[in-house]
Amino acid sequence: MRRMSGVLVLIFYILSLLLPLPTTTASSCCSIKGLSLVRNISELPQDNYGRGGLSHITLAGSAMHGLKEVEVWLQTFSPGSRTPIHRHSCEEIFVVLKGSGTLYLASSSHEKYPGKPQEYFVFANSTFHIPVNDVHQVWNTNEHEDLQMLVIISRPPVKVL
Amino acid sequence: MRRMSGVLVLIFYILSLLLPLPTTTASSCCSIKGLSLVRNISELPQDNYGRGGLSHITLAGSAMHGLKEVEVWLQTFSPGSRTPIHRHSCEEIFVVLKGSGTLYLASSSHEKYPGKPQEYFVFANSTFHIPVNDVHQVWNTNEHEDLQMLVIISRPPVKVL
Repeated sequence: MRRMSGVLVLIFYILSLLLPLPTTTASSCCSIKGLSLVRNISELPQDNYGRGGLSHITLAGSAMHGLKEVEVWLQTFSPGSRTPIHRHSCEEIFVVLKGSGTLYLASSSHEKYPGKPQEYFVFANSTFHIPVNDVHQVWNTNEHEDLQMLVIISRPPVKVL
Repeated sequence: MRRMSGVLVLIFYILSLLLPLPTTTASSCCSIKGLSLVRNISELPQDNYGRGGLSHITLAGSAMHGLKEVEVWLQTFSPGSRTPIHRHSCEEIFVVLKGSGTLYLASSSHEKYPGKPQEYFVFANSTFHIPVNDVHQVWNTNEHEDLQMLVIISRPPVKVL
């Protein structure tokens, strides 16, 4: 099996030498199972799951793209909007692209006050992750700007508790 | 266990009602095991792993942050620079933030020409994923701009073949 994959890498390498020098004219036409492999995010469907002020776009997901281990969303919260207070049994990472807001996190390992939320200021070009099963909420507390984040979860589809 | 977590959510909810209305003055001081929970990406360490033209920043990782299921990187390729031709036994998702380039992908399920790479144009505000074990290479084929991408992998740390 490893020899087979080594042969594939070698074939790939030889063929890449035979290709013309890479240019920006490469095609984006091709698809896997009817879905484009390379997708323009601005053309992907949005949903708000009944939450006012939310725009949710699944960039790569279990239902749509057959991913089994990880899922990536682009979420935008208008000023004042927020996630519910929730928890889930998976790893979750946020990358803030625009705006700012507040993370409320009740760490289950908080020694003195389990269940008491702590506040964290989150801002454009910051990143944070939620420990598995910790209760949390993200709130766009900036009155003037949308809060836009990439959200990455493991073990899709997410089961919110 | 479920009842316990329900109680935690309830405590969180009650405490959140007692908090003053959220403001943008929330603290970002706190840390988990000595590391800031919320991290400013521009202050995180960079590496190039010996590859000219590459800037690699681990936003959330297994070694540094104890993640077990997913890892997130910010990678920037200067014009002409590229990843090696490689494959790995994990899911990998790219989100292109800036610039453009070319993805070479040799799908193992390509019926006619297994091992033959196909070219895909990738561009700012596009997303794509690499099927598990498919041989691939990402190349900044734009002579004028850096190619900057968020890269998400499952099963960290990655074992490149």
